[in-house]
Amino acid sequence: MPVANDAEPGRDMLARLRAVRQQSTTLAAPLSPEDCMVQSCPDVSPTKWHLAHTTWFFETFLLAAFVPDYEVFHPRYAYLFNSYYLGVGAIHPRSERGLLSRPSLQEIHDYRKRVDEELEALLSAPPPEAWPEIERRLELGLQHEQQHQELLLMDIKHVLWSNPLKPAYRTHQASRAEDAPALVAPALVMHEFAAARISIGHAGQGFCYDNELPRHEVLVPDYLIGNRCVTNGEYLAFMDAGGYQQPEFWLADGWSQVQSQGWQAPLYWQRDAQGWLEFRLDGLGALDAGAPLVHVSYFEADAFARWAGARLPTEAEWEHAASHAQEAHASPIGSFLEDEHLHPQRARCSAGELQFGGDVWEHTQSAYSAYPGYRPFDGALSEYNGKFMSGQTVLRGGSCATPRTHLRTSYRNFFYPHQRWAFQGLRLASDPSDSR
Amino acid sequence: MPVANDAEPGRDMLARLRAVRQQSTTLAAPLSPEDCMVQSCPDVSPTKWHLAHTTWFFETFLLAAFVPDYEVFHPRYAYLFNSYYLGVGAIHPRSERGLLSRPSLQEIHDYRKRVDEELEALLSAPPPEAWPEIERRLELGLQHEQQHQELLLMDIKHVLWSNPLKPAYRTHQASRAEDAPALVAPALVMHEFAAARISIGHAGQGFCYDNELPRHEVLVPDYLIGNRCVTNGEYLAFMDAGGYQQPEFWLADGWSQVQSQGWQAPLYWQRDAQGWLEFRLDGLGALDAGAPLVHVSYFEADAFARWAGARLPTEAEWEHAASHAQEAHASPIGSFLEDEHLHPQRARCSAGELQFGGDVWEHTQSAYSAYPGYRPFDGALSEYNGKFMSGQTVLRGGSCATPRTHLRTSYRNFFYPHQRWAFQGLRLASDPSDSR
Amino acid sequence: MPVANDAEPGRDMLARLRAVRQQSTTLAAPLSPEDCMVQSCPDVSPTKWHLAHTTWFFETFLLAAFVPDYEVFHPRYAYLFNSYYLGVGAIHPRSERGLLSRPSLQEIHDYRKRVDEELEALLSAPPPEAWPEIERRLELGLQHEQQHQELLLMDIKHVLWSNPLKPAYRTHQASRAEDAPALVAPALVMHEFAAARISIGHAGQGFCYDNELPRHEVLVPDYLIGNRCVTNGEYLAFMDAGGYQQPEFWLADGWSQVQSQGWQAPLYWQRDAQGWLEFRLDGLGALDAGAPLVHVSYFEADAFARWAGARLPTEAEWEHAASHAQEAHASPIGSFLEDEHLHPQRARCSAGELQFGGDVWEHTQSAYSAYPGYRPFDGALSEYNGKFMSGQTVLRGGSCATPRTHLRTSYRNFFYPHQRWAFQGLRLASDPSDSR
Amino acid sequence: MPVANDAEPGRDMLARLRAVRQQSTTLAAPLSPEDCMVQSCPDVSPTKWHLAHTTWFFETFLLAAFVPDYEVFHPRYAYLFNSYYLGVGAIHPRSERGLLSRPSLQEIHDYRKRVDEELEALLSAPPPEAWPEIERRLELGLQHEQQHQELLLMDIKHVLWSNPLKPAYRTHQASRAEDAPALVAPALVMHEFAAARISIGHAGQGFCYDNELPRHEVLVPDYLIGNRCVTNGEYLAFMDAGGYQQPEFWLADGWSQVQSQGWQAPLYWQRDAQGWLEFRLDGLGALDAGAPLVHVSYFEADAFARWAGARLPTEAEWEHAASHAQEAHASPIGSFLEDEHLHPQRARCSAGELQFGGDVWEHTQSAYSAYPGYRPFDGALSEYNGKFMSGQTVLRGGSCATPRTHLRTSYRNFFYPHQRWAFQGLRLASDPSDSR
Repeated sequence: MPVANDAEPGRDMLARLRAVRQQSTTLAAPLSPEDCMVQSCPDVSPTKWHLAHTTWFFETFLLAAFVPDYEVFHPRYAYLFNSYYLGVGAIHPRSERGLLSRPSLQEIHDYRKRVDEELEALLSAPPPEAWPEIERRLELGLQHEQQHQELLLMDIKHVLWSNPLKPAYRTHQASRAEDAPALVAPALVMHEFAAARISIGHAGQGFCYDNELPRHEVLVPDYLIGNRCVTNGEYLAFMDAGGYQQPEFWLADGWSQVQSQGWQAPLYWQRDAQGWLEFRLDGLGALDAGAPLVHVSYFEADAFARWAGARLPTEAEWEHAASHAQEAHASPIGSFLEDEHLHPQRARCSAGELQFGGDVWEHTQSAYSAYPGYRPFDGALSEYNGKFMSGQTVLRGGSCATPRTHLRTSYRNFFYPHQRWAFQGLRLASDPSDSR
Repeated sequence: MPVANDAEPGRDMLARLRAVRQQSTTLAAPLSPEDCMVQSCPDVSPTKWHLAHTTWFFETFLLAAFVPDYEVFHPRYAYLFNSYYLGVGAIHPRSERGLLSRPSLQEIHDYRKRVDEELEALLSAPPPEAWPEIERRLELGLQHEQQHQELLLMDIKHVLWSNPLKPAYRTHQASRAEDAPALVAPALVMHEFAAARISIGHAGQGFCYDNELPRHEVLVPDYLIGNRCVTNGEYLAFMDAGGYQQPEFWLADGWSQVQSQGWQAPLYWQRDAQGWLEFRLDGLGALDAGAPLVHVSYFEADAFARWAGARLPTEAEWEHAASHAQEAHASPIGSFLEDEHLHPQRARCSAGELQFGGDVWEHTQSAYSAYPGYRPFDGALSEYNGKFMSGQTVLRGGSCATPRTHLRTSYRNFFYPHQRWAFQGLRLASDPSDSR
Repeated sequence: MPVANDAEPGRDMLARLRAVRQQSTTLAAPLSPEDCMVQSCPDVSPTKWHLAHTTWFFETFLLAAFVPDYEVFHPRYAYLFNSYYLGVGAIHPRSERGLLSRPSLQEIHDYRKRVDEELEALLSAPPPEAWPEIERRLELGLQHEQQHQELLLMDIKHVLWSNPLKPAYRTHQASRAEDAPALVAPALVMHEFAAARISIGHAGQGFCYDNELPRHEVLVPDYLIGNRCVTNGEYLAFMDAGGYQQPEFWLADGWSQVQSQGWQAPLYWQRDAQGWLEFRLDGLGALDAGAPLVHVSYFEADAFARWAGARLPTEAEWEHAASHAQEAHASPIGSFLEDEHLHPQRARCSAGELQFGGDVWEHTQSAYSAYPGYRPFDGALSEYNGKFMSGQTVLRGGSCATPRTHLRTSYRNFFYPHQRWAFQGLRLASDPSDSR
Repeated sequence: MPVANDAEPGRDMLARLRAVRQQSTTLAAPLSPEDCMVQSCPDVSPTKWHLAHTTWFFETFLLAAFVPDYEVFHPRYAYLFNSYYLGVGAIHPRSERGLLSRPSLQEIHDYRKRVDEELEALLSAPPPEAWPEIERRLELGLQHEQQHQELLLMDIKHVLWSNPLKPAYRTHQASRAEDAPALVAPALVMHEFAAARISIGHAGQGFCYDNELPRHEVLVPDYLIGNRCVTNGEYLAFMDAGGYQQPEFWLADGWSQVQSQGWQAPLYWQRDAQGWLEFRLDGLGALDAGAPLVHVSYFEADAFARWAGARLPTEAEWEHAASHAQEAHASPIGSFLEDEHLHPQRARCSAGELQFGGDVWEHTQSAYSAYPGYRPFDGALSEYNGKFMSGQTVLRGGSCATPRTHLRTSYRNFFYPHQRWAFQGLRLASDPSDSR
């Protein structure tokens, strides 16, 4: 995890610290203390827990490590707000996070304030010899909090949707006026790339996670890849063709899931007399056929692609094509957290352009595994990424809930193939022979 | 359900309505909005739900039925706050009551206020021809709300105990100073009663539930019954004798439960280096060996009695002995909700006295079933009691969380044999041949 | 458990022993070794297991206790073939009985032969001082084996039905020709009995189980009871009236069961284009509308009775009415195991007669609990009955699979309210006020 | 799936058909009809089912397709013995295969005989124009049956081990005399390979599965790989070091599995007073420290490797190194089904040799996924491999239960990461930097 060296070490960090910490508070602002404690399923954590856990991370890995005689804010918070760092101690069961009426939301805000003050004090006069390690951990703490900002939004969306009143997280959605003129998505065009020996993984000095390293060479075959993600309208055609009723489109585990869970549509879709509705962070509304499909599992993405005579891209293909698009600076980019849409926006690329990044995480066919020569972070932080490398698949590209400053082209997100509550969509790929 | 007729019908009822409704609000007062929404297990309901459900009961069975053109407070509350009246409509799944951050606690207080105002209006000028039915339903609504007051306390105790911080419902407990002098329980004396043909069930004009009727004759054999309930100290002797390790004391289903749940002690007990602690509504504290045992299942009560060479009383024996004690007016009585102990108090009976009522619900060996000639309430309210008459056992006597004005000697409470979160204890009985 | 004293003690017993042991072997004869090892659900045991377990019972409680230096047939059989006598040692998990391809059926037959030989030797020259206890245990062993003969038939019926080929236990059914003339059941007539103080429980010197004692007095109210059991045709009317679709007919736990299990008809019923079929021990065939309903749970029996404006009888009422019918010697009686129908036969009573006994076990509304003054058998055999006294209900009367010599009017059978695989039906009862 | 063309098409095939079909019968010969019907867990199928299913495969895809007016042996066998070809019709639930006492083992042998006769007739005079497709399907049927021969052995091992009597599949094991001289395993030596651009996947004309194609290029990094598989003794050192107690060695999902299943050792190991025992197909015996470790899950293999400071190889590394060893013809090879050991044998390689193939399937770190350009088989057979490409990992090399003629270096086996009942072991790999 290489980090930049600068002359006045703490200053830039301090500004980023304030901005990132404020962003979390801002995201929680529309919610009542009651909203902030609901855990609607075991995958979801309460907003309050995210606010506390990210604070515990700074307290444990920075303050307790580098502030002499540091006294923790509360002796039981390590138990309550540790997520999965088994090396650090016993952990409150994940599925019981919704039972914690105490500490109150106010107490968690007090906790955040106290830890922020201590961090500011530490950064204002850091011990020079410890600075590299402090900076390393601070960077990781900021990235970690940004990850939890997306989780907070994913989770509160599920929480509010689980309420029969279907309350909105916020009533105004920034995007509505803006995208009114564009009534349809741009045409789907498959762009062809020739086989190549390429490098993937993080390059350069900036921060990245351990799972993006080492940068290494891979072979990609001749392949085609879509200029944009699949839309709701395209997915409706799959549904109309009996997509959820015919096992031949599905992986065996996916078909089991469809049957045992009674899946008939993506998460957050429901039907009324007028047609399909979709629950968004601004509430329940008519489904936009031109907008990117979102909240589908790997199983659904894979089944759709098979039905469409295509496949999901590998993560190497994705990174290759996305890097290509990125180098063509004029290509449009989708929305991120800072754009405040909080819902995927229609693609804006022309037929000749490739639009990559933002709006929805894109399923790849690649299992989440170690790059050749992978080394986890040192010490307790070694549990950050490596221990999840089984049974999950990689998603790429970031979503409308991802902080733009948190993302890189080499960024690897991962979920289990049945999970749907992240802002997950897909882009088609195929082999040249498929289309000839 | 016969009710008293009086000259100025609504006035007394109005006073009782205000008092009972206020009692619920008072019980919720020490709790934050966050506390009021936790559901720590499927048997438990959030405080907020109790406040809303009791209000929905009045709204549905009184206001909607008797106020012309009544408009419900919120169209979805019938779905959210119906408990089990399937005849009235679809119902929010019981296990998801803890997900409802909306409506907020404040909105529920508004709902209570609005319904109370409407009820007061209705009572101030009731339609004379409808008055008997209004009075009947109002009485039932009040009794129903009192039942939920006990449930509210049982449930919040479980909620707070489920939090690793073990917060107290309130910090001061009224009883502590008072019971300090009495360090031990009075001696356990088995009183003998001769076989008799007796009547059990509700008698007289006052309110009772359908399940207490009809009053009917039964035969009770010669039997002995304890002057007081079993204490914590007596139960510790059972535990020390390997009570939770030896299958011969247990019903087959009870032993399965012990093994599958890993039971080693009553609910709310935990051990530290100093000895046994007990979680009470005023927090975690040392176990009082002289106080009545509480929070044991039917299985545990039955196993303890078998180990002790005794048995549980039948509900007929219990009602017979309790009526006898009641007629000897000097007999001491245990604590009820109004005494504000919120925890069972040591018995105060002399060897020659029988103390019945309050402190803990007492397990009987009787299955909860219909009395001969039983008729459920009419209409939708028929679901009140009868449909639970399978798989449960009867408990008698009321507890420290039961409103005193809610109880009768003929009152039949009921739980499944594995449940423990009510204030449940036991009193021993035996056959004369056992003690000779 | 009083037993008869006779001059030449072992002789009668020996004859009965041979007959009862032979009956088990005869019942297993139509089955292949493969059939004899299937466990189609946890409630069911393989035929082979029944043959072995009843043998283990004799070996453990008689041979090992009374034959000097007795060496067990196989050291692991105590582990494999103990059912639930926890006092005797560790037990093979019940749900894994279907995994035991070894010992083979042939080895179990060898085991039976060896134990029979040893029992004959013991009976031919019993130690006089031990004879009373030997006789007591032998009697219990025989009764126990007869119980398992019924279980064997109940279980193999479920086993064969679980096979998609729906094979018959035997192809010829004795009853078919015989009952052809009677195309309908006799009219259902409710007979009225006046309230009385009666005695129930076993009387006299013959064998009975501990749960039938002590004989004791109870009060029965005025009641009506049907002259025969409910027929398939009567139950079809309940089904046609939406019986399985409307919660108001059901106990709360029953309705949960209907929904979670998707119940739409009694066990072993299935529908084809022609109408309802029923799986019987002689295979799948058309449902006989005039035959007694069989294979319904307590929940279904109770729901049917409620729909019919009636109720189930209590076990005291049942025993009272059955004793009355028994005293009128001309009353017809249903079929038992020895009649070899192995399926309930149409009732044959006239309007003025009450037919009791055989064909189907009759649900009562009584929870299975101890009679006043109940004492379990001594020693390890104390586990025989008492530990099942929670959560179950009593059935009376015996079935077409019960050995006639095993039954008494005071006999109490018991199942959980959701179970259906016994030959269980029902008879209606009601209160006089219901029919006026 | 290219197949060889020969002048007299059916003759060679006929010989192979007879040999392969006979092999299945031979493997079932030591078992009783009762043994042949046990399903000890959902992953396992009864022997009888394997015998029938492989026969159904030939009947369905060959006889029904190519024999005019072919009449199936039994109309319900398609329902009972289809495994997972959803395109072909409804399927008996997998978890209920152990309930099928009918058809009997004898009927299944009759079924095999009839289908074999029909196949011989078809092969004796095949319709020339259909021959290529017949030959293709016949080849697949033979390969399929060989796969099930290994499954039969894996499954019956689990079946017999599930019986508390721990019966042996056969009492004599061919290997015992032979391997007596070699008391220890050869030293573990890590061989280094330089990074390379290599081809993997099937090459040439012989049969292979769809998942081994297309042959394609990949990059392998510099890597080291063990000359032999990990031994029981080496794994005992991991266990002695607290391997099953310390979460830091484990993937998150693996640690959950260890805790929820109470894993303390590989499957089939148990401890007595003398030390560790292992259940083998010849019964329970002392664990051989020098023999290859077998019956460990991916989670255990991965944890062991992490503890050892190493990792699992990728499937590309494995295929690269194995091909290298194969080209050095003197290298020893492990045992296959034909060697009749039915248990992994100690390695026999010198320090300079690499021993690959047989004894145990070797875990790789590679997720089971499609090769670039993968195409499933046509038609119903498309379900053969592709639909399992999620959530599983690849194992390579074959085991002591794999027919030698069934295996290729490019062969990809796959299991879920928690499964252990296959003959699964591991070989260590590492990065050069790990050892410097």
